[in-house]
Amino acid sequence: MKALLLALALSLTASTVAAPVQVAELLANSPAADWRAVDPDNTLYLQIPGGQVIIELAPRVAPEHVANIKTLARAHYFDGLAIVRVQDNYVVQWGDPDEKHTVPTGVHMVTPEFTADRRAGRYFEPLAERDVYAAEVGFLDGFPAARDPRSDLVWLAHCYGMVGVGRDDSPESDGTELYAVIGHAPRQLDRNVTLVGRVLKGIELLSSLPRGSGEMGFYVPSESPVPIISVRVVSDLPPAERTPIEVLRTESATFRTVLEHRRNRREAWFKFNPAHIDLCNVPLPVRTH
Amino acid sequence: MKALLLALALSLTASTVAAPVQVAELLANSPAADWRAVDPDNTLYLQIPGGQVIIELAPRVAPEHVANIKTLARAHYFDGLAIVRVQDNYVVQWGDPDEKHTVPTGVHMVTPEFTADRRAGRYFEPLAERDVYAAEVGFLDGFPAARDPRSDLVWLAHCYGMVGVGRDDSPESDGTELYAVIGHAPRQLDRNVTLVGRVLKGIELLSSLPRGSGEMGFYVPSESPVPIISVRVVSDLPPAERTPIEVLRTESATFRTVLEHRRNRREAWFKFNPAHIDLCNVPLPVRTH
Repeated sequence: MKALLLALALSLTASTVAAPVQVAELLANSPAADWRAVDPDNTLYLQIPGGQVIIELAPRVAPEHVANIKTLARAHYFDGLAIVRVQDNYVVQWGDPDEKHTVPTGVHMVTPEFTADRRAGRYFEPLAERDVYAAEVGFLDGFPAARDPRSDLVWLAHCYGMVGVGRDDSPESDGTELYAVIGHAPRQLDRNVTLVGRVLKGIELLSSLPRGSGEMGFYVPSESPVPIISVRVVSDLPPAERTPIEVLRTESATFRTVLEHRRNRREAWFKFNPAHIDLCNVPLPVRTH
Repeated sequence: MKALLLALALSLTASTVAAPVQVAELLANSPAADWRAVDPDNTLYLQIPGGQVIIELAPRVAPEHVANIKTLARAHYFDGLAIVRVQDNYVVQWGDPDEKHTVPTGVHMVTPEFTADRRAGRYFEPLAERDVYAAEVGFLDGFPAARDPRSDLVWLAHCYGMVGVGRDDSPESDGTELYAVIGHAPRQLDRNVTLVGRVLKGIELLSSLPRGSGEMGFYVPSESPVPIISVRVVSDLPPAERTPIEVLRTESATFRTVLEHRRNRREAWFKFNPAHIDLCNVPLPVRTH
């Protein structure tokens, strides 16, 4: 059986897709302290007919938008709305384009959080690699991120699976319209949209949806939008309804070893060692057991 | 209606997804000479139940593999085989893992074509941008490519929609197993696999397939592999069965203008100009009218 003997989709589907043996073993044998439980108060379950999508929010980077989104979820604002746009190699987007639902009290347009508050800079962990768009890339609270060493500003990067807030030409947004990246990283959106988190599990439920045939991938009337059954803040659910989920700490020794395995390829299959890794190809392992 | 007012998926779906007005207008008003008709003798139609996928082959880079693949198509080798693997954020792969079909006479394992013959170097058109993996990136015969200025070697780059040849640990391959990239560019595969072309139209038919739940995204027995109805070399078909298809010439003035529009964003929506563009985010416009 000829198989393209590579497994790189570790980042978002670690629990369902096998990594090459050495990385899978590294993760299996890693110390418990190298993992952190994801904070249920900053985790969303997006339930669609295909299953559950788990999103980790980034309150340090986008506190105002995260607060709005949690208020929206707690008011059940998203329930009964729909995924209205699936654009190939770009984004899946959900919200209320026809303004069917009333925006709950306490949710207002807020100023953009394209970059994090300056105090967040000290949490930035650099990745020693070139980048096309930013002077420096790395990780912030486990999310892919970038930094401008001149201004010391940090921001989240539009890698596959990242979740952001749709907006009009005005830079403000309120979090009522959200999207997830399902294609090659549209890094030109960095510092142009407020990113609020990333999909930890279930991105394939979004990325495999039928593409919309309208402009920019919007579904046209003859196509059925995908209904949103519910969006919940996990801390509001009883423990029995929660999926225990952990993320490998980007500051851990295990993470550094995984990164090295992905940068310098030792597998027999590789004939040419890439010796580099793109920020958006760095695995950010997740486990749910 | 709040819409994330961006349309970047131009590259692979130009005929179905609108670009922002200025790029759409640029393309609509471009001189006919800025486009080239795709050679039907180096174009494949991959027919699956969801529709037709059009693949342009790259004979200058991978002549041996392209010859094999055309021989396989002409022997109807792929007809009745299946898509056996869909790994999220990585690849869709089709072939004959159970060796149901006999490999036709004239198709043999050939030496790798990870890089092009040295004479191909003069067709390389550099893109003035940084890259994570290569010293230099650009285009070769309309395909995304990279170059090592020290060795003067050029090779195709694993951008979204590129098509390559699966292989075992041995570097040889015969073209009986093919894959298309459906996620963030796995550039670590560059110079490790023979790339043979790219999907010009219909990549969304592959990228929206259900993911396989087996290791590396292989379908497990309880999942139905997606049947391959046929793979044909377009020049073997009567004109009435051909889709006229043109690609914007990467050496044209229109292409340079489109590239500049995508590197330096002038739309009102953009608050921060990226001023850079990743090789795999450069639109490679295609039209079928």
